[in-house]
Amino acid sequence: MAGLSTRHLLGIKDLNVSDLQLIFETADNFKTVLNRPIKKVPSLRDVTIANIFFENSTRTRLSFELAEKRLSADVVNFAASSSSVSKGETLIDTVNNILAMKVDMVVMRHPYAGAATFLSKHVKAQIVNAGDGAHEHPTQALLDAFSIRERYGDVAGKKVVIVGDILHSRVALSNILCLKQLGAEVMVCGPTTLIPKYIGALGVKVEHDLIKALNWCDVANMLRIQLERQDIKYFPSLREYTMLYGLNKQILDSLDKEITVMHPGPINRGVEITSDVADSKQSIILDQVENGVAIRMAVLYLLAGQTP
Amino acid sequence: MAGLSTRHLLGIKDLNVSDLQLIFETADNFKTVLNRPIKKVPSLRDVTIANIFFENSTRTRLSFELAEKRLSADVVNFAASSSSVSKGETLIDTVNNILAMKVDMVVMRHPYAGAATFLSKHVKAQIVNAGDGAHEHPTQALLDAFSIRERYGDVAGKKVVIVGDILHSRVALSNILCLKQLGAEVMVCGPTTLIPKYIGALGVKVEHDLIKALNWCDVANMLRIQLERQDIKYFPSLREYTMLYGLNKQILDSLDKEITVMHPGPINRGVEITSDVADSKQSIILDQVENGVAIRMAVLYLLAGQTP
Amino acid sequence: MAGLSTRHLLGIKDLNVSDLQLIFETADNFKTVLNRPIKKVPSLRDVTIANIFFENSTRTRLSFELAEKRLSADVVNFAASSSSVSKGETLIDTVNNILAMKVDMVVMRHPYAGAATFLSKHVKAQIVNAGDGAHEHPTQALLDAFSIRERYGDVAGKKVVIVGDILHSRVALSNILCLKQLGAEVMVCGPTTLIPKYIGALGVKVEHDLIKALNWCDVANMLRIQLERQDIKYFPSLREYTMLYGLNKQILDSLDKEITVMHPGPINRGVEITSDVADSKQSIILDQVENGVAIRMAVLYLLAGQTP
Repeated sequence: MAGLSTRHLLGIKDLNVSDLQLIFETADNFKTVLNRPIKKVPSLRDVTIANIFFENSTRTRLSFELAEKRLSADVVNFAASSSSVSKGETLIDTVNNILAMKVDMVVMRHPYAGAATFLSKHVKAQIVNAGDGAHEHPTQALLDAFSIRERYGDVAGKKVVIVGDILHSRVALSNILCLKQLGAEVMVCGPTTLIPKYIGALGVKVEHDLIKALNWCDVANMLRIQLERQDIKYFPSLREYTMLYGLNKQILDSLDKEITVMHPGPINRGVEITSDVADSKQSIILDQVENGVAIRMAVLYLLAGQTP
Repeated sequence: MAGLSTRHLLGIKDLNVSDLQLIFETADNFKTVLNRPIKKVPSLRDVTIANIFFENSTRTRLSFELAEKRLSADVVNFAASSSSVSKGETLIDTVNNILAMKVDMVVMRHPYAGAATFLSKHVKAQIVNAGDGAHEHPTQALLDAFSIRERYGDVAGKKVVIVGDILHSRVALSNILCLKQLGAEVMVCGPTTLIPKYIGALGVKVEHDLIKALNWCDVANMLRIQLERQDIKYFPSLREYTMLYGLNKQILDSLDKEITVMHPGPINRGVEITSDVADSKQSIILDQVENGVAIRMAVLYLLAGQTP
Repeated sequence: MAGLSTRHLLGIKDLNVSDLQLIFETADNFKTVLNRPIKKVPSLRDVTIANIFFENSTRTRLSFELAEKRLSADVVNFAASSSSVSKGETLIDTVNNILAMKVDMVVMRHPYAGAATFLSKHVKAQIVNAGDGAHEHPTQALLDAFSIRERYGDVAGKKVVIVGDILHSRVALSNILCLKQLGAEVMVCGPTTLIPKYIGALGVKVEHDLIKALNWCDVANMLRIQLERQDIKYFPSLREYTMLYGLNKQILDSLDKEITVMHPGPINRGVEITSDVADSKQSIILDQVENGVAIRMAVLYLLAGQTP
């Protein structure tokens, strides 16, 4: 069997179409495993994985941890707040120290764009990027595409609109790269203040009118407004944002066709999406979460097979 | 074998006498296991349990975690401070997301009364209440009753006084419900400011004089004064409380008979109980802690047997 | 096989030369294990170990946790910040409660000197001191001596200088005791303000001139300046310290012979040591980290063999 073309998962940009297909087919198998009474496989017995999170992210950390435990890997967790980071150590030293303890793979979340790539050049372990600043979040994009493929049988030819704060979102960039490579048509929709200037270069459409965007698409991925981030000054205001870009049941029912609604979570109910939409049959939000564990199992399993 | 009459453990109020007996007999077996050199059983292999603590509680969390690991369950921990809760997500969304990752049972501590019951109505997993506000703490009551049964052979007919801050205590309510159902006589003792008005309806005696209460009882359960809670204004003052309701060796030795002393921990030595009492032969405080692991193993094991 | 002469590892002062040799030979074996594809041994199956850290220490905690997991022990972690400690409980009560849950060994880091010894006198479990204030850090000293032995074949007769803040360092005291017992010659080097007055009594040389110290030694152990500790007022200033006691490549290359450079980590690059020195072939800093896991496996394994 041909393996992945990369030793690390730093971003979607490193994966070709064969890689994507291989990951999806492997995740299909693991999803079957996760729905058996016995959800564990011995595949990564004797592999030690360190989850190093320099930013809080309960759901991503839990999803990786469950994926690792179901592959029978040995897992150690390391949270930045309780780490040596406050003692002035460099990132490379922190990770090299963990690696000297014979850790095979590092799953890292970091607030700075490029941190995972930088690290992969300076340490020996295999790195999985679990989100680096506003740059990439490749496993999120993989699980999103996998969920669309599950819903429609294929991603190619589907029309996907990503709605919201594209500028500060790592989910948006990874999704665009992944969906484009799989042959989907991609549009972004949001206020001009939250759309990055480079966006045209990625071959995506831009639409500022939510209704037009929704009438165009098969799938709407409603990004989260990151209310907790004090460093972002949102304009328009939250109330205006919800009026202009929030998705409610009335809008959903007024569309020409039945679209699929996605959200990377955690949801701000009543901000970017109302409760009746989030809980409707058109929403596949919880499928996304379930698929996240299968996708992460597939990525870790395939990367472990790369070890020299 | 008949199982429990409930799918969740939300409170003692959901358990009938047969349930209590079944839990105690199962805990007897697990206590034997815990005293073997090999303390582990494979009972919950392939069951994944999430411990979700929205409030700090080291001893309860550790006791559950050890119970789960000794049953060979897969365990993931989730603490509120590092959670998505700060990102504005609802409780149901948080837990539904964890469940979508194929978690079978949720052990939850939450600061609000009713949180566990609310959750059990909206999610699919089995819920074990590890304390919800000042409402219930059922596994604490079970381990307390189990410890009395261990000391005396039976709970029925025993006289138990619960001393202290009954008003803000989930331990008190769960204990009263559990002991009454098992046929014990229950009294509460404390200053009027810390006794709730509804207490008469529960069929318990009220006594404001500590010496009279102690001379009446077989067992005294000395509740902890929650010094760390800024939201409680204690009256009388701590010093007066200790003078009026603190149990010391002189009082203990002056009683007509030898009573048993309990405390749910953590102890404020010198406040509700002095060191010589806590460490005396009449104290079964550490037996309570030991029994906590056996009781929690029994509850998790019996609930897992309920899975449809 | 004769075992260790002690039931606990409280400090190097409790170990005789046979103990040290036994630990090193056991660690040799475990180091071989750690370099196999299958890094796990079943030695401590059915042993439960609690890591109780009253102070943050990611690398020491991770090293112990990996050692424990590779010995197949059951592990529970307990961090002071999320503990009952804030609820006013005593140290003995906290640990006794954990022990009542049938924990076999306790690995403890505590900010106060003597905490591990105090605890060992009052509780039943075996205690491993993972650092107690400015007192001892025995596993660090063992891994340091083991690393020197690995580099030179033997510790006896080697000349080791410990450079830096000797006064506030638990690493320094444990190292001095360990190296002296193994027959090394030991010198300390630093400004008078950071050299404790008792130091002469330990049979070590004192040198305030870094170049003279380095020209004398075979091995230089560069201690970390603890920038994060607000309670230490450093004199001289950081900049003066680096000028007088920082080790850079120019100094290293100017010495009469090739010395070995050690550092207990985390490194302040550019303060006590420059990057080119830390990353040079003369540095065994990452070997120290790797050896730390093997040494901790050896200590835990040998102590577990002592259980009555």
